[in-house]
Amino acid sequence: MIGNSRKPAQLRIKWLLNSTSDAWLEQAIAHPIEVLIDHAHCERKAAGVAIQMMFRYLCEPGLAEVLSPLAREELEHFERVLEILKSRGHYLEPLPAPPYGGVLAKNIRKQEPERMLDSFIVSGLIEARSHERMSLLAANSPDKELAVLYEELLESEARHFCLYWKLAEDRFEKSVVVSRLHELAAVEAKILSQLHPEPRMHS
Amino acid sequence: MIGNSRKPAQLRIKWLLNSTSDAWLEQAIAHPIEVLIDHAHCERKAAGVAIQMMFRYLCEPGLAEVLSPLAREELEHFERVLEILKSRGHYLEPLPAPPYGGVLAKNIRKQEPERMLDSFIVSGLIEARSHERMSLLAANSPDKELAVLYEELLESEARHFCLYWKLAEDRFEKSVVVSRLHELAAVEAKILSQLHPEPRMHS
Repeated sequence: MIGNSRKPAQLRIKWLLNSTSDAWLEQAIAHPIEVLIDHAHCERKAAGVAIQMMFRYLCEPGLAEVLSPLAREELEHFERVLEILKSRGHYLEPLPAPPYGGVLAKNIRKQEPERMLDSFIVSGLIEARSHERMSLLAANSPDKELAVLYEELLESEARHFCLYWKLAEDRFEKSVVVSRLHELAAVEAKILSQLHPEPRMHS
Repeated sequence: MIGNSRKPAQLRIKWLLNSTSDAWLEQAIAHPIEVLIDHAHCERKAAGVAIQMMFRYLCEPGLAEVLSPLAREELEHFERVLEILKSRGHYLEPLPAPPYGGVLAKNIRKQEPERMLDSFIVSGLIEARSHERMSLLAANSPDKELAVLYEELLESEARHFCLYWKLAEDRFEKSVVVSRLHELAAVEAKILSQLHPEPRMHS
């Protein structure tokens, strides 16, 4: 049991409404390969979402310049995780995704410009949660190669949260951004309040 | 008129069935910004297609390792072209696409594994044509900054053709690849045999 011996995550991005449970950490540490495969999928999906957003808002000045390098970095991480998976005799086995991303996506409003704001915030929240969970894995994983991997990747997750925050803040009133961020952070925290039976980065 | 003074492209990838016409080169040189914007769109679309293919065939060993870095490189070029556009007071204005990509995509067979083979070949052919046309622009563009840009990008287009060729050859009989490549190269050449009224990289 992790309980008393759990090492804390690095400073949590303050907008996340709850901390990850010990139960999640225990589950993740007990299934390192499954979480790693899931993480590879998270990185490629994050790249896909960034590119999709860039395609949707092509004429929006200042967007492609941020989202294209961000997508490149997600792909770089994807390749890095894939290398480790291969070195351990695994590949990109398909894993049923937990409800997390789907439920968050359903909370993106359909009309513009709310859709754009929500898209930035949802992507930012996912990055913030990944940052917190990678910090926990980096501090607590008994598998040293994986601890180092997560340690090296988590800084980017925090940086990506900031990029999405800035994309939102450059285009919307700060009070509007903060208020919607609170609402969506509550949704995010609620999804994670029950541990999903399958070990995933966002279970 | 280009006619007699046209400088030749670098060695054309041998699978292309015809050479680009003088009319295309004249049209492209007369509309450098429109072609540049179109080229930015081509790079981002090429990244999108590579990622889409990677998502479709996730469990196929050896595919993501090639397509993910390829998509990153396309995005890097996209960013580079965007920088030049911005330095000249332009951005990603939406341009109606010429029929080229759509007609080629329609020739991709729907059932597997033919769909995979055709997808590799169509992407390869587009890279090969971009390589030929960038060679022409590099050699003939009176705008030195653009000539240098195309000169620097064209090597990747040829390399990407080879990557797609190898992806096909590693998974299908060589005779099957060559025969389908001939068929699709004929479609590709036919689309370009009539000059599209709007200046585009693949008009």
